[in-house]
Amino acid sequence: MSQVTAVLLAGGVGKRLWPMTQDKSLLRFLDKPLIAHTALALRNAGITHVVVVANRQNQKALQELKGGTVVVQKNPLGMGDAMLTVRTHIKGSSILVVNAADIVDQKLYENILQKAQKTSADIIIPGLERKEYFPGGYLRIEGGKVVEVVEKPGEGRRPSNLVNLVAHFFRNANEFLEKIQKTDSKRDDVYEQALSALLKTKKAEVIRYKGPFGWIKYPWDILEMSSLFLRERVSTSSISRKASIHGSAIIEGPVVIESGAKVLEHAVIKGPTYIGANSTIGTSALVLESMIGRNCMVGFASEVARSYLGNGCWLHTNYIGDSVFEGENYLGAGAVTANFRFDENNIHSTVEGKRMNTKRTKLGAILGRGARVGVNASLMPGVKIGSGAFVGPGVVQYSDMNAQGRVFMDRALVRESIRKKKNDQ
Amino acid sequence: MSQVTAVLLAGGVGKRLWPMTQDKSLLRFLDKPLIAHTALALRNAGITHVVVVANRQNQKALQELKGGTVVVQKNPLGMGDAMLTVRTHIKGSSILVVNAADIVDQKLYENILQKAQKTSADIIIPGLERKEYFPGGYLRIEGGKVVEVVEKPGEGRRPSNLVNLVAHFFRNANEFLEKIQKTDSKRDDVYEQALSALLKTKKAEVIRYKGPFGWIKYPWDILEMSSLFLRERVSTSSISRKASIHGSAIIEGPVVIESGAKVLEHAVIKGPTYIGANSTIGTSALVLESMIGRNCMVGFASEVARSYLGNGCWLHTNYIGDSVFEGENYLGAGAVTANFRFDENNIHSTVEGKRMNTKRTKLGAILGRGARVGVNASLMPGVKIGSGAFVGPGVVQYSDMNAQGRVFMDRALVRESIRKKKNDQ
Amino acid sequence: MSQVTAVLLAGGVGKRLWPMTQDKSLLRFLDKPLIAHTALALRNAGITHVVVVANRQNQKALQELKGGTVVVQKNPLGMGDAMLTVRTHIKGSSILVVNAADIVDQKLYENILQKAQKTSADIIIPGLERKEYFPGGYLRIEGGKVVEVVEKPGEGRRPSNLVNLVAHFFRNANEFLEKIQKTDSKRDDVYEQALSALLKTKKAEVIRYKGPFGWIKYPWDILEMSSLFLRERVSTSSISRKASIHGSAIIEGPVVIESGAKVLEHAVIKGPTYIGANSTIGTSALVLESMIGRNCMVGFASEVARSYLGNGCWLHTNYIGDSVFEGENYLGAGAVTANFRFDENNIHSTVEGKRMNTKRTKLGAILGRGARVGVNASLMPGVKIGSGAFVGPGVVQYSDMNAQGRVFMDRALVRESIRKKKNDQ
Repeated sequence: MSQVTAVLLAGGVGKRLWPMTQDKSLLRFLDKPLIAHTALALRNAGITHVVVVANRQNQKALQELKGGTVVVQKNPLGMGDAMLTVRTHIKGSSILVVNAADIVDQKLYENILQKAQKTSADIIIPGLERKEYFPGGYLRIEGGKVVEVVEKPGEGRRPSNLVNLVAHFFRNANEFLEKIQKTDSKRDDVYEQALSALLKTKKAEVIRYKGPFGWIKYPWDILEMSSLFLRERVSTSSISRKASIHGSAIIEGPVVIESGAKVLEHAVIKGPTYIGANSTIGTSALVLESMIGRNCMVGFASEVARSYLGNGCWLHTNYIGDSVFEGENYLGAGAVTANFRFDENNIHSTVEGKRMNTKRTKLGAILGRGARVGVNASLMPGVKIGSGAFVGPGVVQYSDMNAQGRVFMDRALVRESIRKKKNDQ
Repeated sequence: MSQVTAVLLAGGVGKRLWPMTQDKSLLRFLDKPLIAHTALALRNAGITHVVVVANRQNQKALQELKGGTVVVQKNPLGMGDAMLTVRTHIKGSSILVVNAADIVDQKLYENILQKAQKTSADIIIPGLERKEYFPGGYLRIEGGKVVEVVEKPGEGRRPSNLVNLVAHFFRNANEFLEKIQKTDSKRDDVYEQALSALLKTKKAEVIRYKGPFGWIKYPWDILEMSSLFLRERVSTSSISRKASIHGSAIIEGPVVIESGAKVLEHAVIKGPTYIGANSTIGTSALVLESMIGRNCMVGFASEVARSYLGNGCWLHTNYIGDSVFEGENYLGAGAVTANFRFDENNIHSTVEGKRMNTKRTKLGAILGRGARVGVNASLMPGVKIGSGAFVGPGVVQYSDMNAQGRVFMDRALVRESIRKKKNDQ
Repeated sequence: MSQVTAVLLAGGVGKRLWPMTQDKSLLRFLDKPLIAHTALALRNAGITHVVVVANRQNQKALQELKGGTVVVQKNPLGMGDAMLTVRTHIKGSSILVVNAADIVDQKLYENILQKAQKTSADIIIPGLERKEYFPGGYLRIEGGKVVEVVEKPGEGRRPSNLVNLVAHFFRNANEFLEKIQKTDSKRDDVYEQALSALLKTKKAEVIRYKGPFGWIKYPWDILEMSSLFLRERVSTSSISRKASIHGSAIIEGPVVIESGAKVLEHAVIKGPTYIGANSTIGTSALVLESMIGRNCMVGFASEVARSYLGNGCWLHTNYIGDSVFEGENYLGAGAVTANFRFDENNIHSTVEGKRMNTKRTKLGAILGRGARVGVNASLMPGVKIGSGAFVGPGVVQYSDMNAQGRVFMDRALVRESIRKKKNDQ
């Protein structure tokens, strides 16, 4: 078999990820961006040439990662346009097209490449087996071959229980690129149209996949992704020799603690949990089933449960449950996230102006980079706080806040029952 | 001596117990309703036939307890009417009339029955020795016999220091019932009138009693009752083999921990304390001198001090002091009860429209069944929250709340100092 | 050498110390007032006769200390007037004039007295070596002698890096007192003028001093003074045999714990820290680098960091950072001090009507004697609460409060979304 070029799609713009300011492929899990996890898995599976489709915003960051040749898609014209952009960078005749921010078991890539070698399939598409309906593309299988990808068929109308997973192998990349060129480029599903056209004449094999699958669309999907990494990659404990764990601290279940991290007196960590380099879990703090980035301070008597903290977050006697903090977030003493509606209903959130059901009964707050919360403030379930915004002390924040926004309790709210003259000594 | 029928009075309606929705005889201590404690003590003292006077509301619950024959008093017409209701259910000629929700030492019942056997007394009335005045009925003793019960004589005018304790033995029940029938039934003290009339002609012995005595009139009396049970019945530690206690937890003083309960890392429990079945005392939580029901979660870094929690309460980083939670109460992180006035005065409470002195300097909140409290909310000393009510996040609640009531911070209180346009990415 | 009389100046009135109600020389560190520390150091250095200049307010307290002869300066007319007041109480011919509330190493006093004995200097003035400018008096040195004290020369115009430290030795006290009498007494720098006049004709030696120096002008200077005592005098641990430390408590670094103090389960103390007699560090509390007075209760899950608590303070699940509590201060559960501006700027404070930069990035609250704070209240960085004042539950306090002041959340702020009729049972 000739060389296979992996095409990593990282040029999409994730507006629905707001207030996360970072490109989703750059979100860090276990101290590595998603795209680096994907690139590593591809490399381990035997692919030596990786082309990354970036956009103008993430180009620089992606280049710094040195995970492959970075090509910039100048305008956000979708996957089809992305493919045309990389045309001249493909080595060999075959390609494996992969969403950079999708996380699958590395074995899936190995299986695809093996199938490519052992069979004469023109196309190989993995089908993610899913019992419950979710609004994606589904594979129609006939005679064991993929004959069509049906987009969002609606519940009960699925042609199979196999979801189209974007890790597409094309033996002859040019054939596919030509189809794309011939497709009406005004629509945003050029890639899908071209693939469908190709499926009519080419032999497409399916690989049924039941393994882990992580993807991010909304900010709360970061919690699922974090869970997936903890479950799959933190299965045994590993504590750096350069970490310091106080003798009275208790660590239960699989926990990874990186170099320079400190776990102070009476702290409790329950796995699976990841503690990044140089982070401190303070006296009497509790961390469970969470991912904590680098240089974080989970201060005295704080609890972090089922949450994701990016780098450089500072907590101090806080409760953080089912929450996503992008990084450099500071919380004053007594600030808490409410992560549960008292009517026990699903938590809703507004995304690009539309109210949507997150399908979660537990969801705390989403904080963009550098958002800060004052002492004794309360963040209601599902609120999203823009980067650099500040929720003032004592405020009960029910709604989303724009970046750099500021809210304070109206000081007129406080009534002085006795006001004596100026100097009362 | 012929058979003695115990008549357990449980038909009274305790409006002053609001927001407790449960009949006081059904309030659970050490996982058993008060009436079951009383019925057991009577049984242990040798009484085999127990008749329970129920009302329409508690009839079913009392029948399920299987503590005796349940007879329903159709209208709340007082103790006299209650006695007439059970008339046909009395076996033998003698009766022992007992308030179902009053708790005394079982030996008192034994002493009454012994005195009944050894003497020819027509009536036996226990007199509770009390130094301080309280507004009850007092026994007038002449020649060693009880000759009168004086209701609320006023301080300094007590005929003796013996309080009339309703555990009345009548050798000839019919004589008493006839007196009741002859008494003007329009007044609500028919029982007392009939007893007074009988005392003029019959020989009534007194049994002086110095032992424990617990009774409930107001919701905060539940704290005294809880104290009494802990003091008297939790004198040595008893930890179920089916409970799990983390090695870092500390248990001091007598503590009963039931089956399925869990005590997590660094939790501290100080006795006398009772932890009901399947309840969890969370990481770094502190429970002292409290009664915790079944299926409770005293979450991370919560403190419960000198309080009563019914079944199914959920706490999470809360301070609960000198408080009564009926059951299924949820508190958000950071919610606290204030249990002490800063002027150190007694705490007052409104009962049926009247402001009354609870005579306690420490009193937290009283929560009816299912009342919930949002994150960082504060409950002021002595507030009573009706069943199913919700105190919103950050609210400082100074006054009582009706059942199903809801209060929230006015969101207009929050001032946004900078409000940028919609999308700030 | 003839006898030396030490004149301790304690008659100044420190208005800028508000809301501290106590004279600064009476502020207690390591359970002893500043003046007693100074008097002890002088005694240890060999001075047997001490005269204390008091004012009408602190006269009684100073007499009770029995640290020396107390003389009352009737009106606050400055140091010059103070000197004239003590004239008749001086024994021998020489004096050492010392600010009672300034703390230096005892060796400085020894060095002054040695120099007095070994040389023929008329005057000896210690010069505190300081790199950074601060607005005090600076010594001009010529030919190794002090020839002038230049008051507040302005940055970059200092005649030397030696700050005039008030521990002035005068071999002939009368000469100095005569100069004072001849000076125009209407100005408030009589002392300095007289000294300057004397320096023109007399031989004044300097002692260069690099050791510790503590002084108090503003309330937050108490934090520096506290730090100095902890650093200098709490260098090794010393735990009274009459203190009780639970086996699960952790004590790290040098910590002094006095008689009758209790350290409860899972408490953590990090030195240098001082815990006064009969104080309790509660379950799961954390105290670091702080000075805690007598009879304090640092209750469950409280943190006290880099703070000064006077006698009789009660905390309960609070965060107290970089704060000064004069004494008898009570805080409800969940009340916190914010000690850090989220913009990371220096914290400002209003002193006698003027806004001033405290030059601290970390500063919590300053509480006068008996000031109290309700549950879940928040004190903003640098706020000063007058003695006996009360910050109500849930209040976010941004500004200073007068003594006996009271503020509450406006109850109208709470909106009841459902209000049912009176009785909802």
